[in-house]
Amino acid sequence: MPFSGSLAVDLVDPKILHGSQISMCELEHMKKYPNAKVISLGIGNTTEPIPDIVASSMADYARALSTPEGYSGYGDEQGNKALRKAIAETLYRGLPIKDTEVFVSDGAQCDISRLQILLGSDVSIAVQDPSFPAYIDSSVIIGQAGDFQEAVEKYQNIEYMECGPQNNFFPDLSSTPRTDIIFFCSPNNPTGQAASRQQLENLVKFASENGSIIVYDSAYAAFITDGSPRSIYEIPGARKVAIEVSSFSKVAGFTGVRLGWTIVPEELLFSNGIPVINDFNRIVCTCFNGASSVAQVGGLASLSSQGFKAVLSVVDYYKENAKILVDTFTSLGLKAYGGVNAPYVWVHFPGSSSWDVFSDILEKTHIITVPGSGFGPGGEEYIRVTALGHRDSMLEASTRLRTLFP
Amino acid sequence: MPFSGSLAVDLVDPKILHGSQISMCELEHMKKYPNAKVISLGIGNTTEPIPDIVASSMADYARALSTPEGYSGYGDEQGNKALRKAIAETLYRGLPIKDTEVFVSDGAQCDISRLQILLGSDVSIAVQDPSFPAYIDSSVIIGQAGDFQEAVEKYQNIEYMECGPQNNFFPDLSSTPRTDIIFFCSPNNPTGQAASRQQLENLVKFASENGSIIVYDSAYAAFITDGSPRSIYEIPGARKVAIEVSSFSKVAGFTGVRLGWTIVPEELLFSNGIPVINDFNRIVCTCFNGASSVAQVGGLASLSSQGFKAVLSVVDYYKENAKILVDTFTSLGLKAYGGVNAPYVWVHFPGSSSWDVFSDILEKTHIITVPGSGFGPGGEEYIRVTALGHRDSMLEASTRLRTLFP
Repeated sequence: MPFSGSLAVDLVDPKILHGSQISMCELEHMKKYPNAKVISLGIGNTTEPIPDIVASSMADYARALSTPEGYSGYGDEQGNKALRKAIAETLYRGLPIKDTEVFVSDGAQCDISRLQILLGSDVSIAVQDPSFPAYIDSSVIIGQAGDFQEAVEKYQNIEYMECGPQNNFFPDLSSTPRTDIIFFCSPNNPTGQAASRQQLENLVKFASENGSIIVYDSAYAAFITDGSPRSIYEIPGARKVAIEVSSFSKVAGFTGVRLGWTIVPEELLFSNGIPVINDFNRIVCTCFNGASSVAQVGGLASLSSQGFKAVLSVVDYYKENAKILVDTFTSLGLKAYGGVNAPYVWVHFPGSSSWDVFSDILEKTHIITVPGSGFGPGGEEYIRVTALGHRDSMLEASTRLRTLFP
Repeated sequence: MPFSGSLAVDLVDPKILHGSQISMCELEHMKKYPNAKVISLGIGNTTEPIPDIVASSMADYARALSTPEGYSGYGDEQGNKALRKAIAETLYRGLPIKDTEVFVSDGAQCDISRLQILLGSDVSIAVQDPSFPAYIDSSVIIGQAGDFQEAVEKYQNIEYMECGPQNNFFPDLSSTPRTDIIFFCSPNNPTGQAASRQQLENLVKFASENGSIIVYDSAYAAFITDGSPRSIYEIPGARKVAIEVSSFSKVAGFTGVRLGWTIVPEELLFSNGIPVINDFNRIVCTCFNGASSVAQVGGLASLSSQGFKAVLSVVDYYKENAKILVDTFTSLGLKAYGGVNAPYVWVHFPGSSSWDVFSDILEKTHIITVPGSGFGPGGEEYIRVTALGHRDSMLEASTRLRTLFP
């Protein structure tokens, strides 16, 4: 009698299919056009070198691991004290975030899953539609999602909060049902939209009134240009209702180095009065053993005054890329959202299937994009392009789009 | 209406209390004896420098991240191809492990939790008693364990497989009920015992007959001296019933650097015929984003022929330590198990409470140990001491134990 697993039934996962479908299309395209120089504006992966001050700090630390003075073993599961302090003081300056409320992680996506373990299968969740697929994927895996309903392309137990230009990319909360958890990403992946202060005030009020927890993903906060809040904790009352998940991946080029953090404020309580931070601490100590010590040293260096200036100059580089992409699509008479507060540009093709647009662009210009439907049904008619890339790729993509695509 | 969490009820966790109780005792002791030089033989933390060839590889890689040629972003979630290949070819030489069956992780403990996510709350589990607490802790968190029964100090739904000198540290399988999952750690933490080939053959047969999956933890395999199997896959039939979890932490001194791996053989199937590897791959891609690229470079260097020789010489150093500890306790007329195939020595104090022994040793010698009861009820009457430490600490501990303790 072989073992009967609980997960096997969920194997046909739309997102996994989506990702491999893009790869398959790319492979077929390269077979069809073996000499084409394919440009990827698909996956949001950093490409620019890490500033020397940050890389050197990691190198020096790693080399010293071979000396009695420089060696160290297990650190605190929650992260090095100095790094937790630097995150609280640098990235949350002026906000009452304590270093003990900062949990250093190996990336936002990993902590989203650890939060799902904390929350368990019995909670109800809401997500922005469109949104970063990890919220729904982890929800499916932990058993919250219910059946996938082909007709509407939604999981039965997940509340999809429509966010598009028709509502300034913010859900109509008056018609949104209460859920235990609200995943909210700002600046949003894939739309590139940062929620305004007023919008976030409404969100915090909504969560407070409903007894919901907001899991706020601020992984792209460093890209914010227009004065929108960089943290949910800029909103009064947020400490009682919100967890914030974030990352060094995009701000410091740490996609491969792996480093992130999560804030759980002491005031966030379960209904029985027990602080959520106690349980999250337990999850971190049981399911995680701390981020790599080398990565943590790099993270700390990136928050020094010189280091922070240096990493932000890389962010500026990507923002310049985003401007090139926005201008390109705009010049084609298309509405291009995002790109100002995030490294993603979200382009609308009214009336078109996002997969058709993806194929059309690939065929005509040899450029890989991401069909919007991969981010939820609300992404239909859109494609996402990433500004995380080399400048020359952006310029070449722009030229091809302007000349070959229309 | 504040949110009602599902975990809060489990907060009184014996293991968490256990760990903090040790710290509390240490603090009180230091208050009582402010001038005492406390030696910790408690937590199993590496202390010796990483070989230069390994540290340099990480340093060089980290420094090159600041150059266009040396920079890289996201890697494969499953790990670098070269590292997966090196693990398969170096650590599983002669065994039919494919590189695609190797999933690189940030440590064994982290993958144990990811395996628990894969398995879900509805499976039944068995653990060795005593055992590394992460199996039970993660089981409690994922919701498999049921109520904690104070009288027997066991969770209701967990099968505790007694492993002591009375049964050569191997469970009596004829009286062990079937469970879906069997966590089995060899060489075992805390007992230091490596299961023999015959014992593992019995275990694989038992799992095959019962349709159980063995989650085999081989984190200490590099310490094996006596020819016992280093991997469950040395046993015929294991590919159909076993997942192996392992780690660079103890073999390469990577406790802080964070690197491990998990093997999921293609032949391991759910009862519906779907390979478990498919689902585990999905968990890894959703709940994890790959181990730190810097750590992976170090792991690869540690598996080069020169690197492997260098890290094994550190293992030998710890094994010498273990011998000192075994000899010390033996000279005191005590039975000391382990230390030959693992960096842990498991000392029996017949008729004594393990906490009493812990306190007695601390009071008389200023040495921190771990009371065996923290590893399960089967650990009562024992303490665990670790050989992971500086030689001078071991020698000093030996002197104190020989002169002050009896």
